[in-house]
Amino acid sequence: MLTNIYGTSLSLLTDLYQLTMAQGYFKAGVAHRQAVFHLFYRKQPFKGKYAIACGLEYAIDYIKNLRFDSSDIDYLATLTGADKKPLFEADFLNYLAHFEPTCHIDAIPEGTVVFAHEPLVRVQANLLEAQLLETPLLNIINFQTLIATKAARVCEAAGADAVLEFGLRRAQGIDGGLAASRAAYVGGCAATSNVLAGKLFGIPVKGTHAHSWVMCFDTELEAFETYARALPNNCIFLVDTYDTVEGVHNAVKVGKMLRQMGHELLGIRLDSGNLADLSIKARQILDQGGFPDAVIAASNDLDEYRIAELKAQGATIGMWGVGTNLVTAQDQPALGGVYKVGAIQNDRGDWVYRIKLSEEAVKTSNPGILQVKRFFDPKTGIPLADMLIDELSYADTENELVGFDGINRLIYPDAQSETLLHPIFRNGKPVYQNPTLAQIRSRTRQQLALFGSVQHSYPTGLAAGLHRIKQELMQGYLT
Amino acid sequence: MLTNIYGTSLSLLTDLYQLTMAQGYFKAGVAHRQAVFHLFYRKQPFKGKYAIACGLEYAIDYIKNLRFDSSDIDYLATLTGADKKPLFEADFLNYLAHFEPTCHIDAIPEGTVVFAHEPLVRVQANLLEAQLLETPLLNIINFQTLIATKAARVCEAAGADAVLEFGLRRAQGIDGGLAASRAAYVGGCAATSNVLAGKLFGIPVKGTHAHSWVMCFDTELEAFETYARALPNNCIFLVDTYDTVEGVHNAVKVGKMLRQMGHELLGIRLDSGNLADLSIKARQILDQGGFPDAVIAASNDLDEYRIAELKAQGATIGMWGVGTNLVTAQDQPALGGVYKVGAIQNDRGDWVYRIKLSEEAVKTSNPGILQVKRFFDPKTGIPLADMLIDELSYADTENELVGFDGINRLIYPDAQSETLLHPIFRNGKPVYQNPTLAQIRSRTRQQLALFGSVQHSYPTGLAAGLHRIKQELMQGYLT
Repeated sequence: MLTNIYGTSLSLLTDLYQLTMAQGYFKAGVAHRQAVFHLFYRKQPFKGKYAIACGLEYAIDYIKNLRFDSSDIDYLATLTGADKKPLFEADFLNYLAHFEPTCHIDAIPEGTVVFAHEPLVRVQANLLEAQLLETPLLNIINFQTLIATKAARVCEAAGADAVLEFGLRRAQGIDGGLAASRAAYVGGCAATSNVLAGKLFGIPVKGTHAHSWVMCFDTELEAFETYARALPNNCIFLVDTYDTVEGVHNAVKVGKMLRQMGHELLGIRLDSGNLADLSIKARQILDQGGFPDAVIAASNDLDEYRIAELKAQGATIGMWGVGTNLVTAQDQPALGGVYKVGAIQNDRGDWVYRIKLSEEAVKTSNPGILQVKRFFDPKTGIPLADMLIDELSYADTENELVGFDGINRLIYPDAQSETLLHPIFRNGKPVYQNPTLAQIRSRTRQQLALFGSVQHSYPTGLAAGLHRIKQELMQGYLT
Repeated sequence: MLTNIYGTSLSLLTDLYQLTMAQGYFKAGVAHRQAVFHLFYRKQPFKGKYAIACGLEYAIDYIKNLRFDSSDIDYLATLTGADKKPLFEADFLNYLAHFEPTCHIDAIPEGTVVFAHEPLVRVQANLLEAQLLETPLLNIINFQTLIATKAARVCEAAGADAVLEFGLRRAQGIDGGLAASRAAYVGGCAATSNVLAGKLFGIPVKGTHAHSWVMCFDTELEAFETYARALPNNCIFLVDTYDTVEGVHNAVKVGKMLRQMGHELLGIRLDSGNLADLSIKARQILDQGGFPDAVIAASNDLDEYRIAELKAQGATIGMWGVGTNLVTAQDQPALGGVYKVGAIQNDRGDWVYRIKLSEEAVKTSNPGILQVKRFFDPKTGIPLADMLIDELSYADTENELVGFDGINRLIYPDAQSETLLHPIFRNGKPVYQNPTLAQIRSRTRQQLALFGSVQHSYPTGLAAGLHRIKQELMQGYLT
């Protein structure tokens, strides 16, 4: 269950130009026109193969609460233009004061494996409302999709080992931490150190002690013993405050004390030095000391690359605490998601295609009212290809895919298929039953298992009919 | 004025280990012991020369509101250890339920130029409370200091031109966007696109229209005209939806229409293509069209490096919209701030020094109750050096600096000095009058102007007495 943690209206969490455009549509008499916008990204994050859709529940919560209260309206009334006169007119502000969402939204469920150019969210709404939703949708979906994807990569590197998310202290702001904890769990992390994320989202929380605990006592042994007496059912000792090997020996001593108390040493944690070497030494000491089941946890600037390296070096680490590099997605701290119009109704109520041209072909947007059709092998259930289709023009029998890789393919006639975008809002009302976060996390695992057997170049592209429409539109603009 | 935008208790916005350690201190009977912790970073961000302290007002707001409500306590009571029995005991939870801050906090005011190893925040509190404050302080100060510093660098590259922060859509979460807008303004940005940041923090907001506006009309000219009629006092036209040069000509046409309406074309915006070339062409067209005062704004993946490059190429851009790379600090998305204990009172109430050793000398922490003394040339006011002093041992006349660069220096006897850490909390009560955000932004500018005349290797280090104490402690641990 998601709780809106914000005690103030977030309806102004948008770019000013969304509001100036909204007034423009309003005054031009076109605000009522229905338009379809698609939220998608163009490049796989982290030079990877896929992304994990994430953030939808946050977005639903945002839109459900989208009303402009008197403090919002009063603030907007203070804004002025170049002539020091008000930017917003009274009739428009009055419209906003009575605004209620009327949108139809479809989206790909959280935890789904997705690819570049696929709409993660499709908004059909009047122009004014569709524009108001752009910035908050991008803010929420971009970040959580980024972090869920990063977490999936880190967890993939860790294999069967548990990955704990420890990033709050260096996350980008308060919600940068909270939303990251949520998305990291969706992506496969087993737990977080962030207690508020545990309380609000039901994520398991983990943590034992820091170096500062050890430094507050005269000796490391005294520190471990004191901790063991205070929290005997939560003992993973951080052993590198002074000398790591000595620290492991101290952990073994206190482990024996714990056994006498009827408890068990859960493990130790390494946070500096040569983690591979130290983990091998620590494993020996623990095994010889009678603690073969004690886990060796590691932290210190980890990410998927470092974990793979340590595993290749024979590290005997069984639990990974990953912080900064995960929650800030250090090697690519933003997903370049965009929100582009695909079709607008004209005065007569007919849909008219729209594309945004670009000198770079990959940046030219796709027209239509898009849906993503995923084809499967009917016997194995293995995904075969994703096809972007346009609901205005698609014929159900169409099976020719024009791949984004430039290769045309025919989908097997007997392939099964499902559509990825599901109804989320109808007429401004939520119609989607949010899964629990644990269910979303399971979906991620199932999806990754399914796609694990798909080769590197999973085919994605446009239905041939949509491709033809796009080409015609491009020629129309260019001539 | 800062508003706490969170409608729920944020007191659990901390790592679980802070709470398990808190119970440990509580049960070991040492929770009451006073300790001093310092929050500092070890490496200048962005391979730069300095950082801009930022986030203090957020941190004050957090600590002022630090109470554990019944929902917090109830949640903690559900947490279990390895034996499935509760992690936290009733007497400790009862203590938390009645917790009120009693800390003494000193900090460097926001907008101050700071350097590696200098405590941005110093916390003196009982061990339990000092530990609870660690994670939220790091979360808030790390991120805002990072972004204020990045913004200062971007603004430095832009020189006299205005920099607008446009990052909300790709910021790391909701508060990742809000806090970034605040810090970017502190660092020198002139305005933000983030309307909620404008409402909550009083930051100027800017924005006109997007490509989607142009795409909603049959022609670009119609789009500009319609916008001009709806918002005549806010016209900066985005000219690159179809053909940029054509777009500038359309802007000129509508600029003439605006003049007839008694308004003025403020400028145009470029968002793709060769920005240097296009800006030069656009300048010609605008000048020849009678709009020499119309500004050329630019956006599209900008940062300090790209701005410097464009200026070197002769770009005639006078306003810079900087988004993703600024608000996520793309090239270094986290400041590695840490929080280390410097001294703890023993049973008799005497302060005992503490350091955290590390194989890397730079990572060994500094002992004591630290203050930062900044020396100035009395005639010019130019800063000469920053000296970390230990309030337990420092004699006012001490003027020998052991530099972090390994060079020893004597400070001129007639140098003036000030201490950078100011009282913020006493006995858990705020005693600091927060400046307005505009005042903080001015302070940044003044500080950067002062330090602008300081050479690259501004001397920072330890007072010689403190250095000796540190050496003795290190030898004590090592032998």
